[in-house]
Amino acid sequence: MKKPPARFKNVTSYRVIYGDTDQMGVVYYANYLRWFEKGRSEWLRQIGLPYGEIEQQGFHFPVAEVSCCYSHPARYDEVVKIETELAELGRASLTFNYRITRETDDVLLATGSTKHACIDHAGRVARIPKIFDDAIAAVGT
Amino acid sequence: MKKPPARFKNVTSYRVIYGDTDQMGVVYYANYLRWFEKGRSEWLRQIGLPYGEIEQQGFHFPVAEVSCCYSHPARYDEVVKIETELAELGRASLTFNYRITRETDDVLLATGSTKHACIDHAGRVARIPKIFDDAIAAVGT
Amino acid sequence: MKKPPARFKNVTSYRVIYGDTDQMGVVYYANYLRWFEKGRSEWLRQIGLPYGEIEQQGFHFPVAEVSCCYSHPARYDEVVKIETELAELGRASLTFNYRITRETDDVLLATGSTKHACIDHAGRVARIPKIFDDAIAAVGT
Amino acid sequence: MKKPPARFKNVTSYRVIYGDTDQMGVVYYANYLRWFEKGRSEWLRQIGLPYGEIEQQGFHFPVAEVSCCYSHPARYDEVVKIETELAELGRASLTFNYRITRETDDVLLATGSTKHACIDHAGRVARIPKIFDDAIAAVGT
Repeated sequence: MKKPPARFKNVTSYRVIYGDTDQMGVVYYANYLRWFEKGRSEWLRQIGLPYGEIEQQGFHFPVAEVSCCYSHPARYDEVVKIETELAELGRASLTFNYRITRETDDVLLATGSTKHACIDHAGRVARIPKIFDDAIAAVGT
Repeated sequence: MKKPPARFKNVTSYRVIYGDTDQMGVVYYANYLRWFEKGRSEWLRQIGLPYGEIEQQGFHFPVAEVSCCYSHPARYDEVVKIETELAELGRASLTFNYRITRETDDVLLATGSTKHACIDHAGRVARIPKIFDDAIAAVGT
Repeated sequence: MKKPPARFKNVTSYRVIYGDTDQMGVVYYANYLRWFEKGRSEWLRQIGLPYGEIEQQGFHFPVAEVSCCYSHPARYDEVVKIETELAELGRASLTFNYRITRETDDVLLATGSTKHACIDHAGRVARIPKIFDDAIAAVGT
Repeated sequence: MKKPPARFKNVTSYRVIYGDTDQMGVVYYANYLRWFEKGRSEWLRQIGLPYGEIEQQGFHFPVAEVSCCYSHPARYDEVVKIETELAELGRASLTFNYRITRETDDVLLATGSTKHACIDHAGRVARIPKIFDDAIAAVGT
């Protein structure tokens, strides 16, 4: 029943600030989830449907599950590349996959995924809105 | 015009986690502002008027100005003591002062203050609500 | 080869501040990972081996994997209960499980786990230090 | 004694993510200090002296004082422009001024400043290193 996911991926980047690091001298593990958010936000913008517009239409995609595998630490002032793909599109849920690499040498830093529910303004589970399906179709996947 | 502020102070505490530190091995400077928020939140609870209640009554106290002086770095796993006082109470604004010390030996870590506007749900400047004045009066300052 | 994990659990709590929430009116998903850290930090303190001491002995437990399942949103000013258990203890790794509930009514907010590598100061994989095994043994699990 | 500060300014930008906002629907006040850090970090890169290099030379510029005036709230997905200038250069301290505006229409969001001490690796107050003076001179201010 799950539709085949979109084939394209979004690529964006972020430069690590001091405030992202911890006393081990590397980026604190929770901050990778901020990068995932940036990734899916840019992915949505790329299909022409910024998340703010989805919210204006009365829908939210709250995170239901997240996982992250840390391969190599990110450090201060490094630029990380965030690659985002739609991994799965259900009736009332969607899953993104992420790949974080160091821009200078493509070393893999982390991989992860987030599964999102689709809910309406009242907080009830809702079918993925048609504007989303249309946007996906328009990018020709 | 400014009324004399309440005389009592709230004292609360917080234990530094890894996520609060940065690669210099000390708490990142922006995180002190989270402690200020915790301080004024507990101060409001102590006068019997949790901030959530103020919001339910249709008022918000957004921060208009903040300042912080850093005396000594806070470190991982230290317990910091947060002392909060109402420094000034205007018609449509209020100012809190904060003092952050290390609990084990009372070393001063930082001092600061936040000035807040009072606005209503529509975002217009509003007079400090009567429930606030009443709560202040009730604690006998 | 995996030893049976310790049977006891640590219970600690945290009150949500404004800075933890996002514009959906609930706690931002990355902040649960800060609570996991607080949980395992208190778990270690409870077995008599605060994490700072482990670091002084020349060992670190960086997070290798994290996962979190969000059941119900945490909101501003709620007190969340953080329960932490050691789920697995390997030769050079350990896994904690977490359960986040709302203190007032025990509603389940989230469950999660973190898998940690054990490394030495040079960043090499290292055997879990004896002080850790001893501390575990001492709490009689 | 204070030397005239450099005349040029650095301009960089940042797109607000969900994780920067709070339940009032605007960016949490502490996060502006992250933008200040990004601003001064890019300022230093622009004079050819990234902060990481200063640290490698054995110096740190910890924040001694910060202040911020909030004029207008920043919101989700807005791009903010961060302008940074060196306001004052002392023997063992330096001060940056910041101006945060909304990129689409130049509305002023906040202004602020940070005063930094110069310390060496042992934590002692140190004279601003010559590499800094040289870098300033080289940009012809």
